[in-house]
This record gives sequence, C-alpha cells and structure tokens, in this order.
Amino acid sequence: MKLLTTLAISVILALSSSAAEKYKLKLAATYESNVPALGEAPKKFKELVEKMSNGRIEVRVDYPSKHKAAFAVLDMVKSGQYDLGYTASYFYKGKDAKLMLFTTVPFGMSVSEQHAWYNYGGGKELSKKVFAEHNLVTFLGGNFGMQMGGWFKKEIKTIDDLKGLKLRMTGLGGEIMSKLGVNINTIPIGELYMALEMNTIDAVEWVSPALDISFGFQKVAKYYYTGWQEPASENEFYINKKLFDKMPEDLKYIIEAATKVVSDYVYEYATYQNAVVLDRIKKEHPDIKITSFSPEIMDALKKATDEILNELSAKDPMFKEILESQRSYMKIGREWTKISDCAYIKNSDK
Amino acid sequence: MKLLTTLAISVILALSSSAAEKYKLKLAATYESNVPALGEAPKKFKELVEKMSNGRIEVRVDYPSKHKAAFAVLDMVKSGQYDLGYTASYFYKGKDAKLMLFTTVPFGMSVSEQHAWYNYGGGKELSKKVFAEHNLVTFLGGNFGMQMGGWFKKEIKTIDDLKGLKLRMTGLGGEIMSKLGVNINTIPIGELYMALEMNTIDAVEWVSPALDISFGFQKVAKYYYTGWQEPASENEFYINKKLFDKMPEDLKYIIEAATKVVSDYVYEYATYQNAVVLDRIKKEHPDIKITSFSPEIMDALKKATDEILNELSAKDPMFKEILESQRSYMKIGREWTKISDCAYIKNSDK
Repeated sequence: MKLLTTLAISVILALSSSAAEKYKLKLAATYESNVPALGEAPKKFKELVEKMSNGRIEVRVDYPSKHKAAFAVLDMVKSGQYDLGYTASYFYKGKDAKLMLFTTVPFGMSVSEQHAWYNYGGGKELSKKVFAEHNLVTFLGGNFGMQMGGWFKKEIKTIDDLKGLKLRMTGLGGEIMSKLGVNINTIPIGELYMALEMNTIDAVEWVSPALDISFGFQKVAKYYYTGWQEPASENEFYINKKLFDKMPEDLKYIIEAATKVVSDYVYEYATYQNAVVLDRIKKEHPDIKITSFSPEIMDALKKATDEILNELSAKDPMFKEILESQRSYMKIGREWTKISDCAYIKNSDK
Repeated sequence: MKLLTTLAISVILALSSSAAEKYKLKLAATYESNVPALGEAPKKFKELVEKMSNGRIEVRVDYPSKHKAAFAVLDMVKSGQYDLGYTASYFYKGKDAKLMLFTTVPFGMSVSEQHAWYNYGGGKELSKKVFAEHNLVTFLGGNFGMQMGGWFKKEIKTIDDLKGLKLRMTGLGGEIMSKLGVNINTIPIGELYMALEMNTIDAVEWVSPALDISFGFQKVAKYYYTGWQEPASENEFYINKKLFDKMPEDLKYIIEAATKVVSDYVYEYATYQNAVVLDRIKKEHPDIKITSFSPEIMDALKKATDEILNELSAKDPMFKEILESQRSYMKIGREWTKISDCAYIKNSDK
C-alpha cells in the first residue's frame, strides 16, 4: 500500500509539474499602445497564446513608454533582455542593412506579392538564415499596406519642383528623395503639423490615411500623393532563438499560429481603416487632390532607388542574394497582379 | 493512509480524464486531395489543430472519393454526420441564395477589400447570423484570388461576338453570360479539353492559371480573359454549431487560429502558383493573348449582374442586407485600393 501511495504521489507530481511548466515571456513593442492596429497587435498576440496554451504561456507586453527603447527591440530580444519583440526590421538597417528587405523595398512588391514571395518564393528561408545570426526566430506580424507618398502644400509636376523642397521623410525614402535635390528634414513628430502650417517644411510623409489623419495635415497641405517608397510595410514578431528552440512543439505551433492571426488582423484592419478614413478626409476636405507623381519623377526616383540598392548589394553578398530573389519573383508576381486584381479593378470601374 | 491513497488515485483519475478528454472530429472536404492548395488545406488544418492541442483534437479528413458528396458538405455538417467541412458557400446557393455572398460576388470586392469588409465592415456578424440558422459556425478558409474570365478560341470584341457562343461556365457567372445570349454548357470536367479542341464548345471558364494549366486549354484556345465573375473566391471551414459551442475555450481558440493559418496558406500559395504558372504558359505559348473584355461587354455584364442580384434581394431581406453592406463598404474600400496598390503598380510600371 505504501508503494502504491508513493507511486501515486509521484505520478501526481509528475503530472502537475508538467501541467505547471509555464513560460512567462516578456515582449518589447516598438509602437506605443495607442497606435491603431500596431499598438493593439502585441496585446492580441498575448491574448491568443494565453488562451490557446490554457495559461502555459504568459506574456507581459512592455511598450516604449516603459522600456524607452522603441528602436532597440532587436538587441533586447537578441540578448535575452526580452523574450519577444514586435517591431519592423527596417528600423535596424543601420545595424544590418539587409534586414530592411524583409519590411518593404521602394518600388518593391505589393502586399500579396511580398507574402507569396516570403512564404513560397524562398523569402522565409533567407530570413531564417539572416536572423539566426542575430539569435532570432521571426514571424511576419502584419502588413500595414502601401504608405502614401506624403502631403504636399504645392503641386509637384516636375523634378525641378522637387529641388530645394523641404520634405519631412525618414528612412530609405528620404535618402532617395535627397538624391533628387529634396531637402530632407527630420522634425520631431510633435512639431510636424506646426512646421507644415508655418512653412518650416513644404511637405510631410507619414504613413497612410488611417495614421495620418490625427496629425491634421489635410488642413494645410492639399496634395496627397500615392506612394512608391514603402509599398508593403511588414511588421514582425521576434523571438529569442535560444528560448524558442527549447520550447515544446505544441507551444511553438501555438506561437506561430498566433502571429498569423495577428498578421491578418493588422492588414485587414489597416485596409479597412485606410478606406474609412480616406473617405472621411475626402468628405471633410473636398479641396484635397489625391494624385500621383509624374512618370518623369517616378523614373528618377526609381533610378535613385536602384543606385542605392545596388551599392548595398555590392557591399554584402547576402543583401544581393535576397534582393535578387525578390526581383526575380516580383517579375512574374507583378504580371499576375496586373492581369488579375489591377485589370479587374480597371475594367469594372465606372 | 488509505484515505490519502484513495485521494491520490481519484486525483490521478481526474487529471488523466481531463488530459484524455479527446475530440475525434470528422471533416468532409469538397475538393479532392490532389487539387493544389484546396486539397491540401484540410490536411494542414488537421496537422495544426492536432499539434497545437497536443493530441486533444484528432481530425479525420474525408475527401469526395470517400464521402461521394462534394457538394453536400453543408448538409452533412449541419446534421452532425460530419463535425467539420471544408468547402465554398456558393455551392449551396440552390439551398439558400444568400450563402454565395460570402464566397464572392460578380463585380464585387477584391480579396483585400472582402477581408476588410468581412472582419471589420460587418460581414462576420452577418455571416454568423445566416449560418447559425444552418446550425453552423464558419471561419474563412482561404481565398483563391481572382478567377480568370476563361479561355476563348476566338477574340471577343463586341456583344455580338458573344451571341450563340458555346461557353462552358457554371454558377452565377454562367447565368449572367446567358443573359447576354451566350449558350451555357456544362460538359463534365473530364471531357473539357476534348470538347474545346473539337469545337463542341468555343470557350471554357475554369479557375486561374494555377488550376487551368493541367487541362491544357492553352494549347487550343489562344485568348485568355481577365475575370469579372469571381473576383475573390473564398473557401470556408464549417463546424457543427452544437458541437463547437460545447468545446472548451482553449480548443475553440486553437481551431479558429488554425483556420487563419490555412487561409493564409491558400491565398499565398494560390498567388504564388498563379504567377509561376502564368509565366510558364506565356513562355511555352507566346501566341496566347491575355486581355480584357471591352468596356461595352463589361457594362452589359455588370447590368445583367445587377438585375440578378436585385431580383434575389427582392426575394430575401437578408440577402438584401448583406449585399447592401458589401456595396456600402466596397464604395469606400475600392477608392483606397485604387489610390494605393492599383495606382502604385500603374505608376511603377515600366
């Protein structure tokens, strides 16, 4: 009887220890909690993994207001200071230029093209290789769709109109614009509207209707241009590779599935909000002209883009390999987009 | 001691019974196992839920070769003969016309628009209401993207060219075409290529490059038209509502997350394969002309579509409510698609 009791107790202990094997994970977010979709995304992830794992995973989400390091998420997850991150890889291009290729590329793929490339055209394998060197496992975390080209106070017709223009624009887009003679300016976010109103700047590029509206740019800049610089901005979940590799298989599946649910949420919500907010802007400001840069300007931007990308390719064979993989898929992927969605929408337009 | 033993044993029993609470689910699939993406989808679902639930859910996938009822999946899941289904709702339009609105609508939304509407524009709530009456809980299961307008042996320039034309086309698209004087034909799948070659039919509509290629239509019909009839064909997972409602919360989350992963897989893989196969077709058959119907034909098709949809709306207030919800979102959603992806792709085209 004693044997049975001992046996029984040890079985109980084994069972409950296995049931209690909990992962308390800390996630560092790049976007503040109140940013539409992107601020909500890590909270959704937390809810999903906690529910699906029935509490075996617990996630604490820290926003920049807490960790004070919005653009150091990569390092914090790499080092293990945080277990997870929610961010966009192009913020780390100063550290490793090729990482930005997994976010979006000027004149690059649209969302559906990029997802097809990433998942079935070799992108995921390249990403795995690149991020393993940073001790990271990554999962796509939600695309915000095409970013608009910006709000301009005056109509831009020729390349001459761009020369000397004071434009607030960050990242690769800004670098490319400066090659065309634009004065790139990086005024702090809080001062953007005032700077535009007071003509300290002539134009500002932010994101797309859903995120632009709260700044009020539409009140003072009447030309809103279609984008070219970030056709499909992808966000990503980072997870410390050492930690992830050791997790049980069911929890790995749960984490990956949760990132997919969040990805869909971000893209679908962004698409919806961009449509709703664009409609509101147009109704409240019927004087706004939504337009595109001229073929002359687009050609010049494309040329400047290729110069920069080719320089970066020359410096890093892996950058080159990823870029070539994207270009090779995009060539055929774009043909399909053109004869399917684009032609359909053009043909059914009244 | 005896008390302790009894207690211990009952705890073991409780723990193991809870651990052993298994759901052995049967899934009926509409598409045969070897159909690209759509045949694979239920297998992926099975793998995902089994892994994430650590075996608490087991799924047996039955294909049409087994259950012999590809287009009776709705009834089989409704009645509980099967627990789950993988199918497309427009196959059941004879039973309940409004169900097809959740698959795709001629001249309706593109994939990104439809997903935005479904998830954030009120679609999901309408779907829930409609399918609850069929004792079903549904989850989107993967969009195959735009379906092409078909392979035609002769160029179609005017409405007159359509009159008397023998076209193999099923569903609402066929009904609409017949309003324009087309002879709609529903030759069995196995005889399609021969019928086209022997001029028993003049044209055939199937799906899109990824699924069309294996029939060999490209060898005998040289005009491939952009579609209008199914701009975003969505597939769905059905689950018996009585069963689903009683499942524990973690398993409900796991099932829903798995459907999202599968959804992404289908759309991304279809996008990728359509691009790859289109490229192959163009290379192997450089004489093929990929083109669009004229504005005159598109207008006539649109008019015939509206007539049919309005008739159906008049018969069923819920049909009307769903259609109006879609039209209302599409009006603003399309504006965003046009100034974002479509304008970007047009502007960056060389």
